[in-house]
Amino acid sequence: MTEAATKTIDLAIIGGGPAGLTAGLYGSRGMVSTVVFERQQTGGQIATTEWVENYPAFPEGISGSKLSGLMTAQTEMYGASIELFVTVTSLTRLDCGSFELQTDAGDTWHARAVIVAAGAVPSKLGIPGEEEYTGRGVSWCATCDAGFFKERTVVAIGGGDSALEEALFLTKFASKVYLVHRRDEFRATPIAVERVKQNEKIELVLSAIPLEIVGDGDKVTGLVVQNVKDDSCQTLEVDGVFEFVGVNPVNELLAELVDTSATRGHIPVDKECKVAGIPGLFAAGDLTDSSLKQVISAAGSGATAAFAALKYLDDLPDLCD
Amino acid sequence: MTEAATKTIDLAIIGGGPAGLTAGLYGSRGMVSTVVFERQQTGGQIATTEWVENYPAFPEGISGSKLSGLMTAQTEMYGASIELFVTVTSLTRLDCGSFELQTDAGDTWHARAVIVAAGAVPSKLGIPGEEEYTGRGVSWCATCDAGFFKERTVVAIGGGDSALEEALFLTKFASKVYLVHRRDEFRATPIAVERVKQNEKIELVLSAIPLEIVGDGDKVTGLVVQNVKDDSCQTLEVDGVFEFVGVNPVNELLAELVDTSATRGHIPVDKECKVAGIPGLFAAGDLTDSSLKQVISAAGSGATAAFAALKYLDDLPDLCD
Repeated sequence: MTEAATKTIDLAIIGGGPAGLTAGLYGSRGMVSTVVFERQQTGGQIATTEWVENYPAFPEGISGSKLSGLMTAQTEMYGASIELFVTVTSLTRLDCGSFELQTDAGDTWHARAVIVAAGAVPSKLGIPGEEEYTGRGVSWCATCDAGFFKERTVVAIGGGDSALEEALFLTKFASKVYLVHRRDEFRATPIAVERVKQNEKIELVLSAIPLEIVGDGDKVTGLVVQNVKDDSCQTLEVDGVFEFVGVNPVNELLAELVDTSATRGHIPVDKECKVAGIPGLFAAGDLTDSSLKQVISAAGSGATAAFAALKYLDDLPDLCD
Repeated sequence: MTEAATKTIDLAIIGGGPAGLTAGLYGSRGMVSTVVFERQQTGGQIATTEWVENYPAFPEGISGSKLSGLMTAQTEMYGASIELFVTVTSLTRLDCGSFELQTDAGDTWHARAVIVAAGAVPSKLGIPGEEEYTGRGVSWCATCDAGFFKERTVVAIGGGDSALEEALFLTKFASKVYLVHRRDEFRATPIAVERVKQNEKIELVLSAIPLEIVGDGDKVTGLVVQNVKDDSCQTLEVDGVFEFVGVNPVNELLAELVDTSATRGHIPVDKECKVAGIPGLFAAGDLTDSSLKQVISAAGSGATAAFAALKYLDDLPDLCD
């Protein structure tokens, strides 16, 4: 780590997905000094999404990576700075009202307002074999890894929109895709359910829970599932296991500041995206307790949070630097 | 009027701006029968907006009409039907729980859920000469009418984002643009204020209120303004008067159903865009009491409202048809 001077800015945005990028766009257009911190590449979950059909104004759909790229370019165009591959490791509010951020690059930043838009990451199943075969057949990203399974058999696990969409995507590569879901019906969008049912490469394994990922010591060879109705077990012979069983909000930075026990780890915000009780702190996107986790609603809340942050900064007396 | 049978659908969306179109996209992708009612063309306020710079994923900006067209195409692609140039004249909730809509086409529709996204329309000044010279020099839409004022002098009135953006747009045609604002500073986005101040064609007339639009009986010849600090009056010699002094929510349909006295005519909604006390009724976009009135936040709330409506429809017993 190198010793570095503290950098002072108006608005720090933690997370460079659709919410954070839109907040950065609105912050920089508001002509306050704006920095977006992103621990990986920009785009958040869409960066690894094959195709987005429901972001308005792209009638033919758009690849997630292209959508990320367009949003990123627009945010930078108005002067927001994006700190890529930088993780904010701590966030504290100073007595004088500013926030102090430490990063894994060894830098210290002071920001007069902060929008946390750190998003959410895929949940793991926590079953035997999962950790052992991660990267050797177990994956959370069809876009990233489907190409490894051309003309092979894979299993997708989950019953929500992303599970079904990813299962459909996997059929472009795999010769067969099992879709394992613990219930006997899907909670996904009806149009996605319909497409899955009509796809001949997909075989549904319903009312079934995954018990164990098995392999030959080198790579995955199968998934043991149990039927929840009669407790019978079977082993699906597969080369790949793709898990799409939900996401966890990335809330660690706010653990000391916000009580998320009633919102399953999500940050409660009001309609202006303010975090109650902490002036100058806002949250947006999938990290929050919003009802809908979609690109368009995340982007909308990023704009709302930035607008509220700009109003807050406008009215603010000088804080400590 | 022709006599027509009652048509029954799942989801009626009133208004075809960004909120209504996005709600239509999400509704139709949810595979419920979805109709969007739009009394004019689709796109709402953006349909007559020259250029949109802050809708994410269009880094170079996009014309309002093109953005409207793309959103409309996407909404229709998934099966939503758009009833163009149709005004919903009444909305009532039937005892059985369905909603009944009457239109100015003489049709009666029954819908199991309704999203009102009727938006907002420009406010008028209500000063002498305004009504007399409407369409003869008085306008609320620079995009529509600026072309009539090539190498002429016009005045723009207002201090918000749209006033400044429209004033900048007017400079592409007019040789001179007065910008009249009642305060001595602007509430608009700083980047817009900066651009206005740097534009040599724009002359600021601050701390001034418009008193009267004067003309020669055929067309506008001037605007009388009064300085609020010393009460002095002057007449700006102009050929056109463009008013950008705010918008009024289009709330008439809900006048009997919702109390908007505490929200300046806007419909109060919760974070799921539900209207309190009326199951099956949702509102989205600029009509609501959202903090930010922008394309991206309107679209986000349209998606949120549709998602909540789909959940409501899922859980609903059969209502009357």
